[in-house]
Amino acid sequence: MQEEKKPLILVTNDDGIEAKGLKTLISAVKPLGKIIVVAPAEPQSGMSHAITVKVPLRIHKITDEPDLTVYKCYGTPVDCVKMAFNNLLPQKPALLVSGINHGSNASTSVFYSGTMAAVLEGCINDIPSIGFSLLNFDHDADFTVSGKYAAKIASLVLENGLPESVCLNVNIPDLNQESTKGIMVCRQNKGFWREEFDKRTDPAGKHYYWLTGYFHNTEPEATDTDEWALFNGYVSVVPLHTDLTSYSALQTIKNWNFGI
Amino acid sequence: MQEEKKPLILVTNDDGIEAKGLKTLISAVKPLGKIIVVAPAEPQSGMSHAITVKVPLRIHKITDEPDLTVYKCYGTPVDCVKMAFNNLLPQKPALLVSGINHGSNASTSVFYSGTMAAVLEGCINDIPSIGFSLLNFDHDADFTVSGKYAAKIASLVLENGLPESVCLNVNIPDLNQESTKGIMVCRQNKGFWREEFDKRTDPAGKHYYWLTGYFHNTEPEATDTDEWALFNGYVSVVPLHTDLTSYSALQTIKNWNFGI
Repeated sequence: MQEEKKPLILVTNDDGIEAKGLKTLISAVKPLGKIIVVAPAEPQSGMSHAITVKVPLRIHKITDEPDLTVYKCYGTPVDCVKMAFNNLLPQKPALLVSGINHGSNASTSVFYSGTMAAVLEGCINDIPSIGFSLLNFDHDADFTVSGKYAAKIASLVLENGLPESVCLNVNIPDLNQESTKGIMVCRQNKGFWREEFDKRTDPAGKHYYWLTGYFHNTEPEATDTDEWALFNGYVSVVPLHTDLTSYSALQTIKNWNFGI
Repeated sequence: MQEEKKPLILVTNDDGIEAKGLKTLISAVKPLGKIIVVAPAEPQSGMSHAITVKVPLRIHKITDEPDLTVYKCYGTPVDCVKMAFNNLLPQKPALLVSGINHGSNASTSVFYSGTMAAVLEGCINDIPSIGFSLLNFDHDADFTVSGKYAAKIASLVLENGLPESVCLNVNIPDLNQESTKGIMVCRQNKGFWREEFDKRTDPAGKHYYWLTGYFHNTEPEATDTDEWALFNGYVSVVPLHTDLTSYSALQTIKNWNFGI
């Protein structure tokens, strides 16, 4: 009977089913409930909130153990979440966790991130949802510390719930346990990616471009943001919501003369 | 000399370079400035804020007239904007306009939309940016009324600017001029897409799924939202911002016991 009471936890990511970060996250939340993993068959970094509409989706169950079912889906992270909610899960999950991403999703990187898109999709669907990212892009990065933080934060969200329409963006500095200073709950930093397109010429003499870039922090003086937290050795926890309305701008724009 | 003073306007979309909505938008803003179009070579609906990182980008100039330069880019809408800002434009544009999208981008559809991702990318880069969408998916929809509203709103933004870090999401009902009741500045409606995966079997006997769905309005009683405006014949104008922080949730979560 107690078996039935285990919370259902959906796990996904954007680095794909084989990623070390996903395996760490599964291990981190396994003691907390009944786990269903629906993850992209192939890496989907930079896919953001993309959905697959031009080709059909395919999905395969690859693990079927007590309390652990794993599917790989030939689609984007948001496809995985939609497929899970609408087709694979026996009921609404108690929690959605995404990651652990290989690389930062702090500040405005949240807009490009497939990991965080899965989280925002969970939030839109009223599921407590958390994204985890480690500030290390290596496929073989050390996820020991980030796994511990993921377990702790996931258990806190299961215990406390999250305010309505709120999800969490958690980023973890690439430090060992001793050097990691703990958790800082903070706001999203302002900034943008400055791109430098690497222009090359193919064997047929035609130009092509590789997208590269670096993050530009437009408020380097701020001390209450995720970028500050990470730079100073803290795990950043930013509560996000999916209402993009700028309420402060509503009145200004209502005053415009729209006569047409 | 006066030529030099024309504002530079970047035009993009997600339905691709051949879309009727893009052609309407170019005509609408042409009298307002010097136009540079950078649009996807192929339709990119549902691509959201995706960026192309696994394959290189290619771009071709296809029109080079006085005050009208057109490029097609083999990438996503956000790739187009990044390529424009970092590689193609002689200076920062005075305005970015995206659309006119074939189909609604009201409420949480903003998260899946390539049209609105281009707008949010403009906003992240501190460019006054507007997305326009007509509530008609037909490739041959009548854009006469939406073109007029696009011209008016674009000229107002050029005149007044936009508050810092704010962009506009404009949706236009599929009505004639007489039935369109004017503009309503309003907030983003809450809601989500309820998916129904259409499960089929291929000739080899394997299952595949088509993503379909319908929008579910979770606050049908609200009268201050974009969904209400559109349903009642108004053009909805929602000011959006790119700071996803839920400030109301910050204190709640700061009170959690994060001891680890």
